[in-house]
Amino acid sequence: MERYLPIFYGFSFLTVVIAFAFAAYLYLWVKKQKVNNAQIIKVSELIKQGANTFMKREYKILAKFAAVAAVIILVLLPSPIWNGDYIANISMAIAYIAGTVLSAIAGKIGIFVATLSNARAAEGAQKGIKPAFLIGFRGGAVMGLLVVGCSLLGVAAVLMLTGDSTILLGFSFGASSLALFAKAGGGIFTKTADISADLTGKVELGIPEDDPRNPAVIADNVGDNVGDVAGMGADLFDSNVAAMASALVIAQSLSDGKFANISMVFCYAILGLLSSIIGIATARVGKKGNPTRALNSSTYVTTAIFLVLTALATLLFEGFSWRIWGASATGLLVGVIIGITTDYFTDDTKPIVRKVARASKSGPAFTVLSGVSYGFISALPAMVGIAVSALVAYQLCAPMGDGYAIYGIAMAAVGMLSIVGMIISNDAYGPIVDNARGLAEMGGLGEDTIRTADELDSAGNTVKAVTKGFSIGAAGLTVISLLGAFMSEANTALAAAGRELITGFDIMSPTVFFGILIGAAIPAVFSAMLILGVDKNAQRMVQEIHRQFNTIKGLREGKKDAQPDYGRCIDIATTGSLKELIPAGLMSIIATLVVGFIGGPLAIGGFLLGNIVSGLLIALFMSNSGGLWDNSKKYIESGEEGGKGSDAHKAAVIGDTVGDPFKDTAGPSINTQITVVSLVASLLSSLFVWFSIF
Amino acid sequence: MERYLPIFYGFSFLTVVIAFAFAAYLYLWVKKQKVNNAQIIKVSELIKQGANTFMKREYKILAKFAAVAAVIILVLLPSPIWNGDYIANISMAIAYIAGTVLSAIAGKIGIFVATLSNARAAEGAQKGIKPAFLIGFRGGAVMGLLVVGCSLLGVAAVLMLTGDSTILLGFSFGASSLALFAKAGGGIFTKTADISADLTGKVELGIPEDDPRNPAVIADNVGDNVGDVAGMGADLFDSNVAAMASALVIAQSLSDGKFANISMVFCYAILGLLSSIIGIATARVGKKGNPTRALNSSTYVTTAIFLVLTALATLLFEGFSWRIWGASATGLLVGVIIGITTDYFTDDTKPIVRKVARASKSGPAFTVLSGVSYGFISALPAMVGIAVSALVAYQLCAPMGDGYAIYGIAMAAVGMLSIVGMIISNDAYGPIVDNARGLAEMGGLGEDTIRTADELDSAGNTVKAVTKGFSIGAAGLTVISLLGAFMSEANTALAAAGRELITGFDIMSPTVFFGILIGAAIPAVFSAMLILGVDKNAQRMVQEIHRQFNTIKGLREGKKDAQPDYGRCIDIATTGSLKELIPAGLMSIIATLVVGFIGGPLAIGGFLLGNIVSGLLIALFMSNSGGLWDNSKKYIESGEEGGKGSDAHKAAVIGDTVGDPFKDTAGPSINTQITVVSLVASLLSSLFVWFSIF
Repeated sequence: MERYLPIFYGFSFLTVVIAFAFAAYLYLWVKKQKVNNAQIIKVSELIKQGANTFMKREYKILAKFAAVAAVIILVLLPSPIWNGDYIANISMAIAYIAGTVLSAIAGKIGIFVATLSNARAAEGAQKGIKPAFLIGFRGGAVMGLLVVGCSLLGVAAVLMLTGDSTILLGFSFGASSLALFAKAGGGIFTKTADISADLTGKVELGIPEDDPRNPAVIADNVGDNVGDVAGMGADLFDSNVAAMASALVIAQSLSDGKFANISMVFCYAILGLLSSIIGIATARVGKKGNPTRALNSSTYVTTAIFLVLTALATLLFEGFSWRIWGASATGLLVGVIIGITTDYFTDDTKPIVRKVARASKSGPAFTVLSGVSYGFISALPAMVGIAVSALVAYQLCAPMGDGYAIYGIAMAAVGMLSIVGMIISNDAYGPIVDNARGLAEMGGLGEDTIRTADELDSAGNTVKAVTKGFSIGAAGLTVISLLGAFMSEANTALAAAGRELITGFDIMSPTVFFGILIGAAIPAVFSAMLILGVDKNAQRMVQEIHRQFNTIKGLREGKKDAQPDYGRCIDIATTGSLKELIPAGLMSIIATLVVGFIGGPLAIGGFLLGNIVSGLLIALFMSNSGGLWDNSKKYIESGEEGGKGSDAHKAAVIGDTVGDPFKDTAGPSINTQITVVSLVASLLSSLFVWFSIF
Repeated sequence: MERYLPIFYGFSFLTVVIAFAFAAYLYLWVKKQKVNNAQIIKVSELIKQGANTFMKREYKILAKFAAVAAVIILVLLPSPIWNGDYIANISMAIAYIAGTVLSAIAGKIGIFVATLSNARAAEGAQKGIKPAFLIGFRGGAVMGLLVVGCSLLGVAAVLMLTGDSTILLGFSFGASSLALFAKAGGGIFTKTADISADLTGKVELGIPEDDPRNPAVIADNVGDNVGDVAGMGADLFDSNVAAMASALVIAQSLSDGKFANISMVFCYAILGLLSSIIGIATARVGKKGNPTRALNSSTYVTTAIFLVLTALATLLFEGFSWRIWGASATGLLVGVIIGITTDYFTDDTKPIVRKVARASKSGPAFTVLSGVSYGFISALPAMVGIAVSALVAYQLCAPMGDGYAIYGIAMAAVGMLSIVGMIISNDAYGPIVDNARGLAEMGGLGEDTIRTADELDSAGNTVKAVTKGFSIGAAGLTVISLLGAFMSEANTALAAAGRELITGFDIMSPTVFFGILIGAAIPAVFSAMLILGVDKNAQRMVQEIHRQFNTIKGLREGKKDAQPDYGRCIDIATTGSLKELIPAGLMSIIATLVVGFIGGPLAIGGFLLGNIVSGLLIALFMSNSGGLWDNSKKYIESGEEGGKGSDAHKAAVIGDTVGDPFKDTAGPSINTQITVVSLVASLLSSLFVWFSIF
């Protein structure tokens, strides 16, 4: 064992306690803020109920899935239980369950805090940007701190108790598999509601967003919580765990006593969490300040602190290498660069969004065509960034010895995700203030308050670009290291079978190539299935909204006693998304099994590569084109290119509707799909070795 | 040299003569058909002039490009001229020029025959399906026979004269580089005109397609010729040459006297051409027959004849192997299967197109979302097909000896493209009858004739799906063999430099991975640039059309003396597309150079892989979603889901407009982009070995 490892376990738990305590403080601070408006209290209660109902039904389905998976793991993994190592199988199954439970808790916490903060942020907006910003941001921060705390706690506990990093893959798989379905389900829910509300309200009737007459309006706000908050929490929990787990698997295989590789992973995670705490504590916006700048600058503060702290750690501890620090710093910096380039494509003060807005004047086909085109182009800088950071990390660490190159890439991913606490805070801020805007509208808080809420909301949208850059970039690097983890797992199985070891995955091998082509098609099919899910559900909900407007007298005119049936819409979104959430995820897992049992480990290596490459491309394309359509619509609504109600606006609304499931359902789920497939491959590597056809 | 090779050279030239003679016969037959309608003669003359003007200006630009490229080749390739092998450099430069010239001729011939046949097919449609079909099909067949004849002639002549298959890569690069720009230019031209004509005519004014009042109507018909006919001819000429060239490079490197590998390539090409001739000669449609079935069944006849003839050849000649026959048959059959699955997604008698039509009732956003989704899903079967055929061909031929596996993959590509004569005939039939429909409308030939022409046109659209399946599939297989060709070229250079040889491209190597990620982004950026080109141009042309309708008195009402200025529209399309055609192609070539000079041969191997994988995915997605939008629009226009003028129809028109540049500009150009990049890589391999940073 590494000399300092116990110290780092200790520090890990201590940091988790600090993070939880700080989260508790922030939670109490948010809770102390007052809500007085009866209408807001009522509506926010409806949102909370809707979200909780959905989560309960979703988790019930997922619990069944997890139970089946746990039994399969118990019997088969890490090796068939009849081989005699009961302890390993039991540990793996427990770790898997722990992963799912912590992931579910991450989602629950998010919903809890977000539904608490939204009403308070709405009332805060009456007093101006400053207080409302703090409420939204601190509400998000509670979630950020708890999610990162949980992941550090889980990883440290599993490794300390079992001493076996392979078991960590089980823990990570638990987190990922739950995240996959939670993201898919939440993503379908939120966009079903959002699209239906927009199409019937804004487009057909010309009533404002969040108008209480619209039967889908509560479902829309519920969607922000279950899709963006809970789904995103599960997603980043999973990315963080996967990055640490793959780094630890590689670190353990390297333990030659020269470098403290395992300790280093924990050290970086601890310092990342501490930096995030400082960043969160210092986030402020001036009285008339710019919330976007406040969010971004606290991200940069966190980044800088992390780089300094890890440099100090490298100085202090023997067995820590500057090369690893360099790899990790490269990862983090590239993450920032990816964020900035993404911002260029999606920010409405930059030319791209404005070009798409201008194209909308010629009709919706041009909105779609230009958005698709810029979305495709926007993938280039991020792909180059990931490619360069992998290359630099590898070259930096290769001289340290055999296997260190891939460890360097894993540490670049850990570096990119080090400030994930800060990132989640920013990300969760978005849906909280989005909800606050809705509540301000429904509570009748007046134009000024709505304008303030709008400004806060728009900052949330912009910052999303930066944080998405991080999470997609990190997924790219993590999966390369998972590929390394897969190879080492497969070789263990091949050695046990007395067969030739794998030294790499040569693309000239037709088996690898076979895997690559099929792997590349999977993210496309996966996202298509999710989008079709939204498509189908939204059509169903639009019909229901039409029915209500046609049968409930006085609803259209907004008469006092004409109440829409919000519950029916929530129910349609819930039932529909629960029906659609399993197939897409299951398809990716089954495709992995089919390729593995046909082509064996070589085909799986190719499959993972194809999956990550096309997954990155499609995820970047969908996230960014969705973001730029959303912001071109907002740009036009601010009075440009004809303003609200113009033909350009109508075209932009169509673009935004297309972009909604791109950016909030399919795009961000691809991350998780890639991770899940990689983990399935690693976990089942021995089965593929034994039972494949070729 | 192989024993029978001179015989096969002889047979090649003989077959070329037969093909040219048969083409001459068909040409004279088409020419003999009468045109009487003065209006049709006038309009078809305008179309011919427009097309020729565009081609002249385009070729002028391309001639300059080719001249620069030829000088670079003369100085640097196959090795710097100061190394002393003048003859090789001169041969390479001449081969390159021959490739460009033959490619240009292929385009010219296409335009010539198509503009001859369209008017005759329009008049033929007055007498019914049967005569009009024959005119359209035989016009297309003239082109098919000449293009395939030219490619066989060129390849055989270059190899016979130089005896060096590397020079063939130069010939192939000539064909590809010209095709790249010709497809891009023609593709931008045709969709600029098509979109503008549709948006202003059908959508805004509600006048029918091809209404002579519309100033863009002639430009639209010109577009069919320069985009679909000339561009497609150059494209398939290039694919055919590339498939043969890469098979021959590998065959020559294998010459161990045991198998007649070089002869076999020529033998298969000869038999493919002969089978196409028989298929073309027997194509007929009954008096009330179904033109789609006629086109498809002659494709199947050709396929069957080819399989039998090649089996006989394998029996007759010593040194021919059944394994190679199997690989080639697999390629051809997979091509057919890809075609059939593509058809499932794009044919309006099948459920997918109807689902998209139904989704259109909920608005254009749903048309786009469902089309994008099914487009993504449609990529799966084709990717699986290519993966399986590569795997099968490899496994079949691997036992023949070292290097034969990759030769098997090359022969699978040759097999897939063997019936290219038939495919081009089918493909060129499409724009001819599309033009005929326009001429029937403009010549006032009456409802019945237009309906007949419509039926012929719709068959052209459907058959396109099958032929596109072939060309994309073949590009996939060709590029794998070009990857093999690249590796052998790079190893020659590495051996000369006394450095370690490449044994493969391991995806775990960060240099390879670096190349893969960047390579994968290139087709996305490439297609985005082309689409933006169409987008920009079409906006310009829409403005011009508006100007004409607003300033030319009586034009809107269709008064006799109110003449639109067709020339201005043709001019806008021409100028615009010539401006946009170079950057996208150049970007891909420059990206190859950058990656090669940074990462060397390993990075280029990865780059080619990433390029082909994402290229296939995007090409399939774009072609198929474009096709299904087009056909859902037609399906609605046939009276379903509300019929013409309904909201569903408006939504479907928007979908079709989005799909237009997908399927006719970007999608089919990606093929060529992939081939060009692979050839650049192979040709420059020695420079990358000498001058790369890593």
